[in-house]
Amino acid sequence: MSSMAPPGTQRRVATATLERPGECCPRLHEAIELVGKRWTGAILLVLLDGPAHFSEIRALVPEISDRLLSERLKELEAEGIVERRVLPHAPVRIEYWLTPKGEALASVVEAASQWAEEWLAGEPAARV
Amino acid sequence: MSSMAPPGTQRRVATATLERPGECCPRLHEAIELVGKRWTGAILLVLLDGPAHFSEIRALVPEISDRLLSERLKELEAEGIVERRVLPHAPVRIEYWLTPKGEALASVVEAASQWAEEWLAGEPAARV
Repeated sequence: MSSMAPPGTQRRVATATLERPGECCPRLHEAIELVGKRWTGAILLVLLDGPAHFSEIRALVPEISDRLLSERLKELEAEGIVERRVLPHAPVRIEYWLTPKGEALASVVEAASQWAEEWLAGEPAARV
Repeated sequence: MSSMAPPGTQRRVATATLERPGECCPRLHEAIELVGKRWTGAILLVLLDGPAHFSEIRALVPEISDRLLSERLKELEAEGIVERRVLPHAPVRIEYWLTPKGEALASVVEAASQWAEEWLAGEPAARV
C-alpha cells in the first residue's frame, strides 16, 4: 500500500480513515462477508468468465451440491449481483449472468486470488 | 475487467482458468473466507493503518465484543497474518502488527472497500 510507512518504522493508527466506523465498516464488512460466503467466490470466478448455465457452474465447482448452488445463486440474485435469464428455446434453458454490480466484484475476487496464489500456494489446499 | 467481452455479447465460460478447480478454488475460497469472516475485514482495516493495542482496535471497531476480538486476533495469528508483540514497559502492553502476509491483504480489503463504497453506498448500512 503506497500510504504505508516502510516496514520497521513505527506506524500509528491513523484514526481518520475510521473516524466514523459506523459509516465505513458495516459496508466493507457487508461486501467482504458477501463475497466470503462459502462457495460464493468460486461461483463469481466462474461467472466472471461469462454467463453460464446451472450445470456449467456445477461442473466447474464440483464440490458444491445442487441445493447449495441454487441457494447461493438466489442470494446473489437478491443482492443484484447475478441475473437469471430464461432462454426461450426448447428445451428451456436458464442462464446466469453477472450484473454490472457483480462484474465490479472482479477486482475483489482477483485481489483475493492473487493473494491466495502468493501466500497460500506453499500450503496444502484446504479440504472443501 | 479488460478480458471481458462488451456487455450484451454472448460470453462463454472459459474453462481454462478453472480447468483444475481443485487447485485454484480451495485457495481462493480459503482466502476470501478468511477475510470475509465476521469482523476480520474491519480488524485488518485498522491494522493496515499501523500496529495497534487491543483497546485501540476495540475503540475503532466499537460493535465487536472483547471476547470476539480476542478470538479473531488469535485466528489471524494462527494464520500468520497478525503478530502479537509484548512491549517490555511497565505496565506491559501488547501490540498487534500485520505480518507481510497480512499487509499483502491490503489489496483485497481496498478492493472490497471501493466496491462497497461504489455499489452499497446508496443502501442503508446493515446493522452489525
